[in-house]
Amino acid sequence: MSKISSVLISEVGPRDGLQSVSATMPTAAKLRWIDALYAAGVREIEVGSFVPADRLPQLADTAEVVRHARTHPGLVVMALAPNLRGAQAAFDAGVHKLTLPVSASAAHSMANVRKTPQQMVEEVRRIVELRNAVAPATHLEAGLSTAFGCTIQGAVPEDDVLPLAVALAGAGVDEVGLSDTTGMANPAQVRRLFTGLAREIGARAGAAHMHNTRGLGLANCLAAYEAGVRTFDSSLGGLGGCPYAPGASGNVVTEDLVFMFEAMGISTGVQLEGLLAARAVLAQGLPDEPLYGMLPPAGLPKGWTQGAQHG
Amino acid sequence: MSKISSVLISEVGPRDGLQSVSATMPTAAKLRWIDALYAAGVREIEVGSFVPADRLPQLADTAEVVRHARTHPGLVVMALAPNLRGAQAAFDAGVHKLTLPVSASAAHSMANVRKTPQQMVEEVRRIVELRNAVAPATHLEAGLSTAFGCTIQGAVPEDDVLPLAVALAGAGVDEVGLSDTTGMANPAQVRRLFTGLAREIGARAGAAHMHNTRGLGLANCLAAYEAGVRTFDSSLGGLGGCPYAPGASGNVVTEDLVFMFEAMGISTGVQLEGLLAARAVLAQGLPDEPLYGMLPPAGLPKGWTQGAQHG
Repeated sequence: MSKISSVLISEVGPRDGLQSVSATMPTAAKLRWIDALYAAGVREIEVGSFVPADRLPQLADTAEVVRHARTHPGLVVMALAPNLRGAQAAFDAGVHKLTLPVSASAAHSMANVRKTPQQMVEEVRRIVELRNAVAPATHLEAGLSTAFGCTIQGAVPEDDVLPLAVALAGAGVDEVGLSDTTGMANPAQVRRLFTGLAREIGARAGAAHMHNTRGLGLANCLAAYEAGVRTFDSSLGGLGGCPYAPGASGNVVTEDLVFMFEAMGISTGVQLEGLLAARAVLAQGLPDEPLYGMLPPAGLPKGWTQGAQHG
Repeated sequence: MSKISSVLISEVGPRDGLQSVSATMPTAAKLRWIDALYAAGVREIEVGSFVPADRLPQLADTAEVVRHARTHPGLVVMALAPNLRGAQAAFDAGVHKLTLPVSASAAHSMANVRKTPQQMVEEVRRIVELRNAVAPATHLEAGLSTAFGCTIQGAVPEDDVLPLAVALAGAGVDEVGLSDTTGMANPAQVRRLFTGLAREIGARAGAAHMHNTRGLGLANCLAAYEAGVRTFDSSLGGLGGCPYAPGASGNVVTEDLVFMFEAMGISTGVQLEGLLAARAVLAQGLPDEPLYGMLPPAGLPKGWTQGAQHG
């Protein structure tokens, strides 16, 4: 813990958060929110999803949001696509990075995309081929959802997760991350799975996408960090599911996650004051949506100077 | 993480929680709450504080609560005393374990008890002598408050904390714990300080008392566990300071803490269903007080069987 280290915070609110709320944020408000995140130092943002507009009208403007986000130097503009058709649209729009969700739970996979995990591996292989042909610089990430448990089938055997990650790496994606879609992960499991992931696919082991449904979000991120993970998905204000509703699956709160790492002396590149300003911009864009997080109401500790922490 | 392990959950709600709320819980309701905690498997409860009744009228019935709690076989009945006079009353009442708060921050110590930390060490020495004379079986714990930071003086140098712990061990207490009174701790600091504590005072290194003010409560408990801590203070429903008020310092929530450890395969001896029943009893006794925690509204994960977790 004493050596200087750093992590990448990958903000998923504009995609994962907005797709979970019923309100539609006007495009101009999205752009202001993204600008504020960038101003705070956030350097990877998942800005939308390439799905049919009738399925997720909140994200119908994703191509336009991608275009705007690309004007920020050094920002990795990311989006999600569930299939080849969405990937084509994402490549056309010029995303830097594309995330492809693949459920580790067969039950969740069928319910969500009407494909088995194995059929999804084939879809991913086709997307890799398309990427190689039309957008070779675009980074491809597979996000293994329900990797730690599933609200439909319950436990997801770890022996289902790692072979699927290996198959996806074999299909040609650049990295494979693990998602606690349902807020069922615990720190011991997180450490075990990410350690196994690095053992199986080496440098292609990707991000930790943790939820705070049962309060373990930050503890799980800490365990993932200790297992070598250096990219963490989170959502400003915890947007993406009300943590007080049964079955909800709120994302880890970016403000609290950045505070944890910075307090530990692990650099995120993100300024907390700027993040709190971005939170205000988000609140203006979604005035009726509750925002979460413990740091924002408590405030920074007395004597806090970011970057002066020695862990 | 794969070996079988267990921890002790030390419930502090009836003392730390009740002293922070303005309402006074009737004695009968306290006894029902303690009975419910015991029924859930909790085996250490801090039931009150021996301070002048005009200072904390909510805890004026502590001697009576101790008498009742002592009727539960195997329950360690704990109380707090800030000075020799309170310790005498605690020994008279028959507590099994007495916790003596000592501030690591000189500013906090003066504000709280009008004594320097060094003067508190002398007070503790007198309490040890009294214990040896009149209640030799009573276990004495010093709780180092503001060990991770102070709302008055800001940062608390680690070089102030460990020598104080050594002095308290030298004064004859059986264990010394560290408290994040102000919710300023981070996991790297927690690991460093508890590792240092064990190095300095060996088996007398005591409990982790963490707060969730900035959302890091469980991550800090995880870090303490990894540094060898096996006793954790927490409060049912997070009673003891509203986490949404500036400057508040809510305790770690017992329900979430037990869930984390049990999910990891680390036995707490506490049944979550019983704990949720105790939460309902607490809510009846303090109907106007908000209760916290993420697990209670989210519920247990699908497929959950306590004790069947393999980590």
